[in-house]
Amino acid sequence: MALATSLVDDITAIVGDRWSDAEAELAQHAQDESWHPPMPPDLVAYPRSTDEAAAIVRACHAAGVPVVPFGVGTSLEGGIGAEHGGVCLDLSGMDRIMRLSVEDLDVTVEAGVTRQALNDYVNPQGLMFPVDPGANATIGGMAATGASGTTTVRYGAMPHNVLGLTVVMADGRVIRTGGRARKTSAGYDLTRLFVGSEGTLGIITEITLRLYPIPESIAAATCTFASIDDAVNVVIEAIQLALPVARMELLDEPAIEAVNAFDDMDLTVAPTLFFEFHGITGAVDACADEVRRLVDEVGGTFAWATEAEDRSRLWHARHRAYWAMLAMRPGSKGWPTDVCVPISHLAEQIREAQKDLAASDLYAPLVGHVGDGNFHLCYILDPDDADEFARAEAHYERMITRALDVGGTCTGEHGIGAGKRDFLRREHPEGIDVMLAIKAALDPTHTLNPGKVV
Amino acid sequence: MALATSLVDDITAIVGDRWSDAEAELAQHAQDESWHPPMPPDLVAYPRSTDEAAAIVRACHAAGVPVVPFGVGTSLEGGIGAEHGGVCLDLSGMDRIMRLSVEDLDVTVEAGVTRQALNDYVNPQGLMFPVDPGANATIGGMAATGASGTTTVRYGAMPHNVLGLTVVMADGRVIRTGGRARKTSAGYDLTRLFVGSEGTLGIITEITLRLYPIPESIAAATCTFASIDDAVNVVIEAIQLALPVARMELLDEPAIEAVNAFDDMDLTVAPTLFFEFHGITGAVDACADEVRRLVDEVGGTFAWATEAEDRSRLWHARHRAYWAMLAMRPGSKGWPTDVCVPISHLAEQIREAQKDLAASDLYAPLVGHVGDGNFHLCYILDPDDADEFARAEAHYERMITRALDVGGTCTGEHGIGAGKRDFLRREHPEGIDVMLAIKAALDPTHTLNPGKVV
Repeated sequence: MALATSLVDDITAIVGDRWSDAEAELAQHAQDESWHPPMPPDLVAYPRSTDEAAAIVRACHAAGVPVVPFGVGTSLEGGIGAEHGGVCLDLSGMDRIMRLSVEDLDVTVEAGVTRQALNDYVNPQGLMFPVDPGANATIGGMAATGASGTTTVRYGAMPHNVLGLTVVMADGRVIRTGGRARKTSAGYDLTRLFVGSEGTLGIITEITLRLYPIPESIAAATCTFASIDDAVNVVIEAIQLALPVARMELLDEPAIEAVNAFDDMDLTVAPTLFFEFHGITGAVDACADEVRRLVDEVGGTFAWATEAEDRSRLWHARHRAYWAMLAMRPGSKGWPTDVCVPISHLAEQIREAQKDLAASDLYAPLVGHVGDGNFHLCYILDPDDADEFARAEAHYERMITRALDVGGTCTGEHGIGAGKRDFLRREHPEGIDVMLAIKAALDPTHTLNPGKVV
Repeated sequence: MALATSLVDDITAIVGDRWSDAEAELAQHAQDESWHPPMPPDLVAYPRSTDEAAAIVRACHAAGVPVVPFGVGTSLEGGIGAEHGGVCLDLSGMDRIMRLSVEDLDVTVEAGVTRQALNDYVNPQGLMFPVDPGANATIGGMAATGASGTTTVRYGAMPHNVLGLTVVMADGRVIRTGGRARKTSAGYDLTRLFVGSEGTLGIITEITLRLYPIPESIAAATCTFASIDDAVNVVIEAIQLALPVARMELLDEPAIEAVNAFDDMDLTVAPTLFFEFHGITGAVDACADEVRRLVDEVGGTFAWATEAEDRSRLWHARHRAYWAMLAMRPGSKGWPTDVCVPISHLAEQIREAQKDLAASDLYAPLVGHVGDGNFHLCYILDPDDADEFARAEAHYERMITRALDVGGTCTGEHGIGAGKRDFLRREHPEGIDVMLAIKAALDPTHTLNPGKVV
């Protein structure tokens, strides 16, 4: 469906020639990094400011045309497909760092700044933004999806690290939420309502974030175990002891094999934990000693990676694990799962899921942000094999059912998007009506990312 | 205004004789610990379960009668006055701890459990719930107001520590938000929408909380300085170094004088920081050494309080500071202020406020959760002196204006209640409409705590 000429004229008046309806460009904005089928918008616009973004939303709202916000397209639940066509608002050109306060450890950025660009900017000041979902996502996308990742066990996820937002509402109004104070109890917490709402309640255009000092000392270690259970038990004990571990990442044997092959590593093929410790020097040493003792107790192995180069090689490999898995089966499509459970249930949930994988004849290596009880089996699928896809779908449904049964969630960090609306209803059978009431109150015309979340 | 007999009959059918309209009991529920004038409800009901609470709300909703939730009445912004009469829902009898998981470090409690009762229950298991607003508030009240306090700099405020809620909605429906997973991105973050909404969007009846291991090592120190500026500079440097300080509390000379007099202490009368360090032994020592170095650098004094007894004497005195200040002027009323600013502005904001105090002929000692940029000047007022009250009101207005000018908030942790609705509008001139839209969507009949927040 082509857009009305009058709307295209409006958009041209706002952004000049910074828009396109060329097929290749629409296709580029039709799909994220997941298995979801492409759903191209009718037009992609590239605003350079909140005012431009707001003017486009206002024009679309008046014309009854949907708006789908887009960062760099690294989401995994189909959150950016234009299910009902409309205008894709590509915010990647809004990439200014607007303000940095080293003393206050906070920064305000436009939505299109990526997390690596932000770190490149603040690292020379001795600061870092630690939230790390793996992909080099935009800060706007990370806020909109409530991203977390490898460092959440220490630094919290996006909801904890966003201090304030600038948001374009469905009718094009612009509001500011939160502020620069470290805490506030001034009315309803709109900041955390928009964080994680996946562009369905408002479009986030600017974000004020907490920053952290780069730790005086950083050390990493690779630990291997006879079983996933042993690895998880070490994690539980480390948490019980309140050890200030910054990262605790679990990989199973198939994941290690994939990483070894892809990044030319020679890691021992066994259930493995990658640890990272942050702090002042004495504290890091004390913490690492404790972890080594816990690993020894279950008969695991503990290997230091103290050199910065070794550490970055390790985390580079971990970040590329998804691509490494895909490379194990050339031409395949990936489907990363994302349940999160209370940690006391983690080992048993992984065991059940892996048993079921074997029974379902599926290949799905595992990585997990295990300190949070969050793990990802990544189905590696033949895109032409409908039966294999159906088996994965059924396997995932059973895995989510088990997670919900123990008080877990169907989505630890990837969101609902287009893919998990039914599961959201199962997880929050009463809450969904409250979510729908909020959506109806803030976007009665279904202008913003329609068909997602609720 | 008396309630309709039919509603009283309904309430009797739900809670039997666990309700009262005796004047003394109404008076007890008419006022919090602040200067706000008493506003008694028409009836106080004492539910013992979520089902009973929901049934009462349903009956009130049908009868068009307001419901005001009540914990133990320690709020400070008039959040519990029955501005439009109606039924006070006293949740203090809902005091069961419903579930504790030591391995997962989480617990589910009813709203009436106090934070001390919770700690008494979990401390013997080696766990603690660290959020500490000073008062022995109920967990339900702390969740409803988004409480924080002395330990927020290390453990976060209530929004970070609530994993899930059971909430009675305006029409008596019961919903569950969040869950037991450490993180989730399943739909809109209803948990943090209800946390801090002060009973105006729903009534929180059960709360699932994060717990923390009791640290292996705890140490405290008292540091005095020549000026507030010196003290704040040490705090800023400690934060820049990412020292894992658990508490950093600032007291000015008048506050120290009050504490000395009330608790028979002999603290040096000077701008003072109370520090507390939590961690594994080596880490606490390393952290404390760093702080001592920072204090030395500005010429301050550093005194250890390593014995548990000395520590608890210190924090006991800090917690009673409000009462100590009131005791300096017998028969007085207290009015604690609550602005929060970016820490780089903290010293200057305190300086301005203190200069203005002198010019306004007001007595208002200062305590501050200074790691968060949050400070409280407590006006100690003669309840019969209208002019003094007016001077305090004008002083506070100027203080809030200065805080808003630097990106701060009019309320760091005490909430909006009845007292700060105008300031909320000034802080969030566009956001207020979004808050009103949410209130209208979730409580169209204004059943829940009407007249508060929005």
